[in-house]
Parts: sequence; structure tokens; C-alpha cells
Amino acid sequence: MKIVIIGGVAAGAKAAAKSRRLLPDAEIDIYTDDTHVSYSACGIPFYIEGNFEDYKTLLVRSPEEFAKDGIFVHLQHKVSKILPECKKILIEDLTAKNAFLASYDKLIIATGARPFVPQIKNIALNNIFTVRRIEDAIKIREKISSSKSALIVGGGYIGIEMLEAFVRQGLKVTLFERNAHIMSIFDNDIADLIQTQLLSISDNRFDIFTSETVIEFTGDNNGVNGARTAGGKYLDIDMAVICAGVNPNVELAIDCGIKLGSTGAIEVNDKMETNIQDIYACGDCVQEINIVSGKPVWMPLGSNANKEGRVAAMNACGFPESFTGVLGSAVTRCLGLTMSTTGLTEAAAIAAGFEPVSTTVNKSDKVGYMPDANNITLKLVADKKTGLLLGGQGVGAGDADKRINTLATALLAKLTVEQFVNNDLTYAPPFSPTIDPLLNAAQILMTKIEPTS
Amino acid sequence: MKIVIIGGVAAGAKAAAKSRRLLPDAEIDIYTDDTHVSYSACGIPFYIEGNFEDYKTLLVRSPEEFAKDGIFVHLQHKVSKILPECKKILIEDLTAKNAFLASYDKLIIATGARPFVPQIKNIALNNIFTVRRIEDAIKIREKISSSKSALIVGGGYIGIEMLEAFVRQGLKVTLFERNAHIMSIFDNDIADLIQTQLLSISDNRFDIFTSETVIEFTGDNNGVNGARTAGGKYLDIDMAVICAGVNPNVELAIDCGIKLGSTGAIEVNDKMETNIQDIYACGDCVQEINIVSGKPVWMPLGSNANKEGRVAAMNACGFPESFTGVLGSAVTRCLGLTMSTTGLTEAAAIAAGFEPVSTTVNKSDKVGYMPDANNITLKLVADKKTGLLLGGQGVGAGDADKRINTLATALLAKLTVEQFVNNDLTYAPPFSPTIDPLLNAAQILMTKIEPTS
Repeated sequence: MKIVIIGGVAAGAKAAAKSRRLLPDAEIDIYTDDTHVSYSACGIPFYIEGNFEDYKTLLVRSPEEFAKDGIFVHLQHKVSKILPECKKILIEDLTAKNAFLASYDKLIIATGARPFVPQIKNIALNNIFTVRRIEDAIKIREKISSSKSALIVGGGYIGIEMLEAFVRQGLKVTLFERNAHIMSIFDNDIADLIQTQLLSISDNRFDIFTSETVIEFTGDNNGVNGARTAGGKYLDIDMAVICAGVNPNVELAIDCGIKLGSTGAIEVNDKMETNIQDIYACGDCVQEINIVSGKPVWMPLGSNANKEGRVAAMNACGFPESFTGVLGSAVTRCLGLTMSTTGLTEAAAIAAGFEPVSTTVNKSDKVGYMPDANNITLKLVADKKTGLLLGGQGVGAGDADKRINTLATALLAKLTVEQFVNNDLTYAPPFSPTIDPLLNAAQILMTKIEPTS
Repeated sequence: MKIVIIGGVAAGAKAAAKSRRLLPDAEIDIYTDDTHVSYSACGIPFYIEGNFEDYKTLLVRSPEEFAKDGIFVHLQHKVSKILPECKKILIEDLTAKNAFLASYDKLIIATGARPFVPQIKNIALNNIFTVRRIEDAIKIREKISSSKSALIVGGGYIGIEMLEAFVRQGLKVTLFERNAHIMSIFDNDIADLIQTQLLSISDNRFDIFTSETVIEFTGDNNGVNGARTAGGKYLDIDMAVICAGVNPNVELAIDCGIKLGSTGAIEVNDKMETNIQDIYACGDCVQEINIVSGKPVWMPLGSNANKEGRVAAMNACGFPESFTGVLGSAVTRCLGLTMSTTGLTEAAAIAAGFEPVSTTVNKSDKVGYMPDANNITLKLVADKKTGLLLGGQGVGAGDADKRINTLATALLAKLTVEQFVNNDLTYAPPFSPTIDPLLNAAQILMTKIEPTS
């Protein structure tokens, strides 16, 4: 039994390790064009921020450790073709500059995603980075030491995390988001709140501009030194990071006839099987089913990658297992502000054919007299006719994250607001008010449900 | 319409406020033998600890504020008899020292609970306190300023919270628990862990002795100055608090023919109705149904009292509403150690007729490289045959509380471990590991489920 895995960051590394545990005698190879394997890509902004000094802290498992388990990691080996008809792959050794074929019994595609790089003049200048791989992390952190200012293109998760990282490192930061809202995974009203709350703690350390597109970088052989926007702004900068989103790495899959889904990522069934026999896919290159809407989504997140890698390995190794889909749960923080979401936003609920009602509460996360009480804003979304809970968003200096997990569980179980409002949540003054903000919001949302009789 | 409420701390105050909103024209009276109404009894240890200076911070709503809403609060008015046959109550005015009758259309009993005071020689000495009412809080905090050492009798929630309070106030503290375990609401293994972890951070500030009973206090007219245990220990002390549990205040109810449940608290149906027409009961004096076991329990907690007060008021005012029961969710902290539980312990599961399996994991609450990562221990309990989740306990310096709420939601929805293991929980390095400890525990627990085919 020969299991070949393409890609080795999260899903690929997990699939390899799980396969080894399931089939002690299988031959297992990981091919990756990357210079590192099995690392915490999600941790890169936190390394750049200075939460720890050594980038090696991000490495979960080295090629040597994999080798001890009989898993062979081939770094800087780019798979350039899949030949399903003869169950072989064509591999380019990027250092030796040669190519060879390898056969597989089961192939697991975990090629991940890559940063989307918008068309900006002079974007190839030095000191303009993307944030994806270990080398990016090392280079960015290195450059910080000789920089006073940084520009961020894009205000999604990574852009917001990089904002914190640069600010904590003492840089003056400017973030440009071409759309009208940063954090567009949230409903517009919540995204506005995020922006307002962030700017309220800026203290002249950073600026955020929305509806503003960077159209040109200026610079010389030393690298970037300025940026110009469509709105006519010009800024002197020492470095820039492009955080304008990611695209799934699916070229290899398309080329061999693997079907993509409507999201543009690889379509797999609940066993993580592609449409070609003995080829599985998992991680940031595949689309998922949203459990709430039943519709395809693309959620390239480390938590999903990990679970999908496990399920792909189990099925590839002959141990049937299902991946039930995702809720779209995600969280990040920026300078003490937590932003968390699960399920459908109100906008997504409408798009999915629901008739949503929502309520937004702003409450203390603990009893108000506790010295460390902080406010959180919670938005709850439910279907007007059935009362089915559809999603929630939490923002604030207080504990807005784990409450979203409480809600995620309600979505998983397909609870209605009426069922959820009876939840018995823990109470003590250092942890929550007598009526938790979640239940408070649910009580209000109850009044907006209008079942058709 | 005349609504009379006996007791006004949490359930009573809530019932009054809710009744007013539902019936703007009803006559609403609260009678209480207490000197205060509508206060955060759960906050008393945190006031004593010094989290805030003014005890008035604990007061939620004053009699004057109630009066503005047309709710008449009669402090130090003890209801000494209920006469259901003529729908009247007999009231003693404790200050004027007289008695009178008042009629009701609907009566809501919210008489709460009182501290259990064990038989200890000389327990009536000065500077030996219970922790229940505002006067207790004021007296204890006053006495701290002239004290160097304190003794605590009982290691349940209140005892543990008072330990933190006294330690933070700089007293040398000794806690005696007559049973073999402190925090006996947890399984013995978790209770042992709590004790070990607490002692590991004691730093000579406190001692905890289990299986050790205080049998005598010594002292003089100035008050207590020592305590002797059954095991022969003698300690010099400046003050003592008795935290040996509580008993429901049910004498008034018994006297008029109201039925108690098997727990010794008042039996009510899901409408919070007692067996006597037009008499409702709510809060610490009533028993609840545990949603997981379907069996009666007595959970005198502020969170339950609040909800029950609301439901009692709704039904009394003619707006039918059900209280679905409790999960037994509770939390406290002591010196940075969080202790939280929901559902059934393994012991409780056996007592309720389940055949439980359990797993306990000790994991970082965040990705290990984050500077504020802390460990938590999670114990998950499920039924071996059906896989139904039955309960969970969380302990640690890390975030062990909100994870228990995630689990509580799974219990409310009656999820199996197999369903729960697919949960999509938020992930980012500052918030949790890629695989949340909850899911990690669930994965292990899955392997112990043995469905009968």
C-alpha cells in the first residue's frame, strides 16, 4: 500500500500521521514545493508580533521526525502532473532540477491555497510581502527591525492580525481595504462596529481606510518606499504586506480532470473523495458543505484542514469516516478586540434562502462590578418562520469567542431560539452576568419569531 | 389582580419586575424578613475580597426604585403563615413588632435558602459568620481589617470563594472540610485535582484539610480566638466563616400543605406551580428537574433563580411559560484556578442509572506558543451504550469555563459524542489549539462507546 500526499502544512501532515497510525506497514510519502512541512501557518502573525523569538516554534514536526515514523517528506519537490490512468505523479525536484515519476495506490491532494495578489504597479519591489509560508514570516520579521512604517493591503483576518503584529512591534501602520468594510466575513453593521472599535483604540498607532485601493508602489533597488491610492493618497512606507485574500491551489487537480465545486475549490464528498477514484483532497484546496445552509462554501481554515486531513486518511486507509461539514466558525483578535463568528450572517442567511431576523445586544461579559468586566456585542440570527438558529457574531474587549462556540453547538444540533433560550449556562460574577448575553439576545430574538400556523 | 411575593433577593425580585411588565395595573407586593431586597448574593465573596469598595454595588434595585414602578417592598416583614383557604398571608412587621393579614390573588414563594450551621461547641461566639445576606458581607469585611487569620468551615463553592477573598485580603486562612473531598459537586478524581492544584499555589497563604471536623470554638466576650478539630488540631484564629452548605426555607410552605419533593425543596411543575392553586414557588427554595437524568435535583443557584422567577411570574400573570429544567451548570474560581461543571458527574450518572464511560484530558487552552497559554483538565462523561453525552467538568488556570457552556449546549440538545465530535469550534492561536481540548476529549471518548447492536 502506497499513500502519496501532495502538500504537508496542516491537512497533508495530519493525513500522513493518521495514515501511519492506521496502516503501520504502508509506504507514505509527502511531496511539497515548500521548504518546510507541518507548521502552524496561523501562528505566523503571532511570531511576527514577537510573542516568541524563534520561528522554529511554528514547526510542529520536522522531516526527521516524520522519517522516524517511516513517513518520507520530500521538500521542494513540486508535483507538476497527476496521471490517474496509470496512478502516477510527475515530480520536479526543485533543487536538483530534475523530474521523476512516482506511483500511488491512494493519492491525497492537500495543496492548500496561495495569496491573491492584486494588480498593483511595482508590486514586485523588495519589502513587499505576502503572509503564507515560513520564509515569508522570517523575511517580514527581519525587515521590521529596520522599518518605521508598514502598509497593509486588505482588512480580512490576516490583514487585521498583521495590523496587531506591526503595531506591537512599534511600526506606524496604515491599512487599506478596497471594499467598503474590513472583516467582510461579518455583517456590515458588525464590520462597521469592528472598524469603529479598532479606531477608538488606535492612539495614533494606525489608520484604517476602507473603499480605498492601492494602485501603485514607488521605490528603487532598495525596495518599496511609498504607495499611492486611487483616491489620491500618497504614503511613505518602509514595507508592505499583501493580505488581499487567498485562492485555492487547484491547477494540478483541474489538469487531471478533478472536478471543482461552485466555489472554485475542489469538490469532495463527505469521505473527502474527489470524482477520480483513489484520489482524495482535503484542507484549503477543497470546498465544504455549510451545515446550516446545506450549501457549498469555501472555508480555508486550519481547524477544518486538520479534521479533513484526518477523514481523508481514514477513508484512504480503508476505515470509513464522514466529514459532516462546517459551520463557518472563526475567530481572531486585534489589540484586545475579539471578533468571532459562526453559522450564517444575516446577509448569508438571505442568500441561502432563509428569512432571517436578528438581534444585537451590547452587554458586560461579567457582572459589571467585577474589575475586569468588559463589554461585548453579540448579534444573533434566526429564521423568522421556524425559529431555527442560523448564526451569530461576537465582537468586543470581553469574552466574545467561547460564547460563539456555545452557539456553534446549538447550530450543530439545529436548535431553535426557543430551545436555546432555556440553556443552563454557568454563572458566577467573574465569568458572566446572571443572564448570559447569549441568553439575553435569545430572549429578545424570541419575540421576533413569527411561526406560520 | 393582587400578586404577593414572599422573598426578594433574586427569584422574588425578578418575579416582581416581570409581573409589572406583564400586568401594568396589578398590585404587587414583596414581603421579606431581610433588610435588603434585590441584591447579588453571589457577589458577596467578591465584595469581601475587595474587588469593589461599597457594598451598595451589590444592590441591583432599591425599594425606592421598585416603588417608582408601583412594586411595594416590605423589608423586615416576615410572613409567618399562608392561609390558602382564604388566600391570605399573615405578616409580622419585625420593626413595628405587630402582625397583620394581607390577601393575594396569586402568591409566589421565593423564600430562598439559609446556611446550614453544624453543631459546633461555642458557635454563637462573636466573629463567627455565615455568608448569605448583605449584613453578613458588611460584618465580615469590617472584621477583616482587625484580623490576621481566618478559619473556613466547608469547602464547597462559597468556602472556596471565601478562601480566595481572605487570601487576597492578606489573611492566613485554614479551611476544614469534614468530607474526604472539597468541591464534592465534582467527581472525586477532579475534586482531588482541584485540591492538589490549589495547594500548589498556596505559597503558605492557606491550608486545606479534608476529613477533618471542627468540633469546638474557643473565645471570650471579644469573640472567637481558636478552633479545635476532631483530629486534635488546635488553631488560633481571629474570625471564622461557616460555609457548610444551605437548606431550603420551606417551613412556611410545609405548614400550609405545600408538597416538598424528594430533595427536600418545594416540588413545582414546569409552570412553577405548587400543589396548591394560585401558589407558585421559585428560586433556592424549589427543586428542579435535571434535563440529562430527568430526575429531581436541588440546584440553589442564582442563574436558576432568575429564570424560575421569570417563569413563575409569567404563569401567575396568565402568560403560560415552561421552565425546562436545569443541567447543573456551575462555575467558580479560586486564585486563578477555574472550576466548572455541567450535567452529570460520573458518580451522578451511575446513580441515575446510566452506564457511564469517561475520559480526562489535560491540554493547553491555546496554542502552546502563545505567552498566556495555560493548561486545563477536562473530564467528559457519556453513556457507554448510547453514546449520549452526560456531563463534563473543567479545571485549570486556562479557560475551563466557557468550554463547559459549549458542552452544556450539547447536553441541552441531547447530542451523542459522535455528533459532538464533528463540532466546528473557532480556532486561532490566542484562543485555542487547532483541535480544541473539548473535541480532543470527545475523540478519545468515542473509542469507549460500545453500542449494543
